[in-house]
Amino acid sequence: MWLKNVWYVAGFEAELEDSAVIARRFLDTPVVMYRTSSGQLAALDDLCPHRLMPLSAGKRVGDQLQCGYHGMRFGPDGVCTEAPGQARPSDKACITSYPLQARHGLLWIWMGKPNLAKPNLIPDVHWYQDPAWVPSDGYHLIQADLRLLNDNLLDLSHESYVHTRTIGNEEEESIANFPLEVTVEGDRLVRAHREMPNIDPPPFFAMILDHKGRIDRWQTAINLAPGINMTDVGVYPVGTARKDAFVGHVLHLLTPETDHSTHYFWSMTRNYRLDNAPLTQAIRDAVNLTFDEDREVLEVQQAQIARLGGAIPRVALRLDEAPLRARRLLAALVEREQADPDYVMEPLPLIDDRYLQG
Amino acid sequence: MWLKNVWYVAGFEAELEDSAVIARRFLDTPVVMYRTSSGQLAALDDLCPHRLMPLSAGKRVGDQLQCGYHGMRFGPDGVCTEAPGQARPSDKACITSYPLQARHGLLWIWMGKPNLAKPNLIPDVHWYQDPAWVPSDGYHLIQADLRLLNDNLLDLSHESYVHTRTIGNEEEESIANFPLEVTVEGDRLVRAHREMPNIDPPPFFAMILDHKGRIDRWQTAINLAPGINMTDVGVYPVGTARKDAFVGHVLHLLTPETDHSTHYFWSMTRNYRLDNAPLTQAIRDAVNLTFDEDREVLEVQQAQIARLGGAIPRVALRLDEAPLRARRLLAALVEREQADPDYVMEPLPLIDDRYLQG
Amino acid sequence: MWLKNVWYVAGFEAELEDSAVIARRFLDTPVVMYRTSSGQLAALDDLCPHRLMPLSAGKRVGDQLQCGYHGMRFGPDGVCTEAPGQARPSDKACITSYPLQARHGLLWIWMGKPNLAKPNLIPDVHWYQDPAWVPSDGYHLIQADLRLLNDNLLDLSHESYVHTRTIGNEEEESIANFPLEVTVEGDRLVRAHREMPNIDPPPFFAMILDHKGRIDRWQTAINLAPGINMTDVGVYPVGTARKDAFVGHVLHLLTPETDHSTHYFWSMTRNYRLDNAPLTQAIRDAVNLTFDEDREVLEVQQAQIARLGGAIPRVALRLDEAPLRARRLLAALVEREQADPDYVMEPLPLIDDRYLQG
Repeated sequence: MWLKNVWYVAGFEAELEDSAVIARRFLDTPVVMYRTSSGQLAALDDLCPHRLMPLSAGKRVGDQLQCGYHGMRFGPDGVCTEAPGQARPSDKACITSYPLQARHGLLWIWMGKPNLAKPNLIPDVHWYQDPAWVPSDGYHLIQADLRLLNDNLLDLSHESYVHTRTIGNEEEESIANFPLEVTVEGDRLVRAHREMPNIDPPPFFAMILDHKGRIDRWQTAINLAPGINMTDVGVYPVGTARKDAFVGHVLHLLTPETDHSTHYFWSMTRNYRLDNAPLTQAIRDAVNLTFDEDREVLEVQQAQIARLGGAIPRVALRLDEAPLRARRLLAALVEREQADPDYVMEPLPLIDDRYLQG
Repeated sequence: MWLKNVWYVAGFEAELEDSAVIARRFLDTPVVMYRTSSGQLAALDDLCPHRLMPLSAGKRVGDQLQCGYHGMRFGPDGVCTEAPGQARPSDKACITSYPLQARHGLLWIWMGKPNLAKPNLIPDVHWYQDPAWVPSDGYHLIQADLRLLNDNLLDLSHESYVHTRTIGNEEEESIANFPLEVTVEGDRLVRAHREMPNIDPPPFFAMILDHKGRIDRWQTAINLAPGINMTDVGVYPVGTARKDAFVGHVLHLLTPETDHSTHYFWSMTRNYRLDNAPLTQAIRDAVNLTFDEDREVLEVQQAQIARLGGAIPRVALRLDEAPLRARRLLAALVEREQADPDYVMEPLPLIDDRYLQG
Repeated sequence: MWLKNVWYVAGFEAELEDSAVIARRFLDTPVVMYRTSSGQLAALDDLCPHRLMPLSAGKRVGDQLQCGYHGMRFGPDGVCTEAPGQARPSDKACITSYPLQARHGLLWIWMGKPNLAKPNLIPDVHWYQDPAWVPSDGYHLIQADLRLLNDNLLDLSHESYVHTRTIGNEEEESIANFPLEVTVEGDRLVRAHREMPNIDPPPFFAMILDHKGRIDRWQTAINLAPGINMTDVGVYPVGTARKDAFVGHVLHLLTPETDHSTHYFWSMTRNYRLDNAPLTQAIRDAVNLTFDEDREVLEVQQAQIARLGGAIPRVALRLDEAPLRARRLLAALVEREQADPDYVMEPLPLIDDRYLQG
């Protein structure tokens, strides 16, 4: 069961340029999105109420969507404006529309009660559009439950085994061996912080720092329920100042497609070498490869769960502390929303100044 | 639930030339068909009663089918004539045979009670073999319920959206905007007629008429339950005589393969330019393409129904009148056959002289 | 339901050379196998108890298997020796191990109660490793229930129809027409013997004998429940001495992968032309092709059973005598084991001296 009264990331704002029409499934509901000529954002059920054809398989005619089978047309509010063969379209022939907002360069959709969809409830992930930061972004569709992705992002110790080609070290310096500080904030946020002083730089960090000597590194995994994740990571050569660290805010914005697949909109945003376009692309390529590695373990895990059933993890380790706390928060929020269908959560700030970034 | 006491088209008669053995599933029953050396038509369950192998995976030995696993042989009546390793085949080892007839150049199979299978119940679609007409024929296997194909053929307004490359006009002249006359005849036939005077010729008709100026056009969609459809279409340049119209009788002969897939044997038969073989082929190619377009919407619709359930159409439009009437006739006939397993229907003539073709 | 207190063939011993790690499913349980540096054989559940990843997707580190997700390590006994991020691995984090033995050049696994796994219960198939014999071996994974494979091996009359390119004759000399002697020994073994005097040699036997004239042939199909099969086959030119016959012991060692798929480890071992390596390879190629032919009928049969249900054979022929006897023995043994979970069966010798081979 999903949390519904919440803004989910539906895409990148740039996807709706040039009269684009985008079809995507959220919470197992097929949705079609577009922007009208006057700039209005529209999100509708991707389903003609006549014979169930996806509207996205038809065509856009001005600011309306026309079904590709019998030509019924619908406006951005979901009202049928034309039904060929009859003077007036039936009142029954209208489709559900969803609140859709653009903010921080992202599209946000609200699949819950429409009257509760206040824009101030959108989480602050401004770095994606902040001129002081540069994003390297991309998208993965992962065939796994959103909670497995949260687990994976909240327990970065897997980097030592899954990502040795990119952001992990050899297991001789297993990330799990560095102490982890896990904190819970309010009813919605889990933060897991780890300092890794004086380590060999994994390949990715050697590349971005252009430095092969030993480094100090910190990493903070942040999860704002249900699916807003950020990895705050800083690296600097041993002996240089922490305040000059290269900082990356890696946004992992997750939206359920179904209960076994998840939209993964991501961006590694950095505060250094802002104008270096080749570096921006090199980071995009490296992160893309890294998340391919995650995809593999996540999808195998999902397939095993589908086959074997039961709770995950089957045996909890100490490194499951943050994932388990986030799972408990999420379960409690879902239960709360089901008890009170008007319940909405305020967003919380992702960055904690204690760790010196912002 | 299917209507069973009825002749279904099983194929083109020409398919059984040269000792061919054809395997095809009808009403979810695998059937194997062949013609003996003396000309007898045979249709048998495609299933060896020993270990369930399809007989079509074995080989034909004279006028018998031999199983490819242990060599059991069956004659055209389904009786086992040989069981290796024993002097006399078991009486239990026989298989069901079905009445199979050749008529009008087509094969017709009866899946209901065999004693009711009178050849005079075969519908008259003589144009396929009539020297005054020339067929352009073909076959599609469509992954959709037969009723969706009937719907599609009885509501030709979709031509304006699905077939703009072939037989539809641009939607500025949506076919749905021309008045439609729907009539029901007996308990078995629905006819939907439409006159379209003074229109721009869609690409297909410009080709066959070899004429780019405006035309008069009529189209009559005819459905004889459960799956005999004909589109009677006439076109002639504005100002010429209706009696000189180019007439096409498009046969759409539908037989359920399963409850979600349908054999579609088709033929566009025409009464003009009879000796023009390149035109015959050009029409075959164009119709093939047209029905590929239909396949796409039909299969998407079937997949959506499988996913979403519920009745079709979900919201009925005026253009659903003929499809809904045909669905009601078919449902009533099925109900009647279930109440009276000996019930059979007489065929009705497809052509109504009121519309001047015959 | 499977017989569990029995040694199943898990592979060829040679597969575990060079630090190999092999993943294979037995009785629907994924197992990972390897040999330690000291020679100990290990078979473990192929499943990390933390997040269900197959251990075979991780890597071998010395004599331990390391999970590819979070680096947990397990020894050959299934005990967790390392859990990153904590000083001591949890006692709960251990995995099931299975008795695994090497014997006769094969690996044998015991999926039942471990305390009952006595090596003396391993069936004698010594020919695979006997210097007086030479094997031509291989492996097929067949998508069919083990019992269908037993059926197929116990009724060799199918050779006349399935294997006409290799070991069968044309059906004019259908194997089914030669008398068959079926015997049952103890509660576990079925033997079906047939003499075929003075026949045309099928292609395979013409090749191995290098002789095109008529031959005498015998074949004995032996099934030791649940899945140890041997075909004892002898051929010699008409007029030569039976004691000089070319004898093949064809081992068909079957282990359920799932209830609809079977591991088929095979070896044609022969007592003649021992040093002829090209002949060894030619036999391997021919047998491989022959079992491809079996695969086809077995997998079609399995698919038909899945679709149609019911018992097999649906109509029993005389040639089903040996298959049916073996099915009854197996069903009785399964019933017996379920009544007495400590029940184990002694193996029986495969060869009967009456038929002059050994």
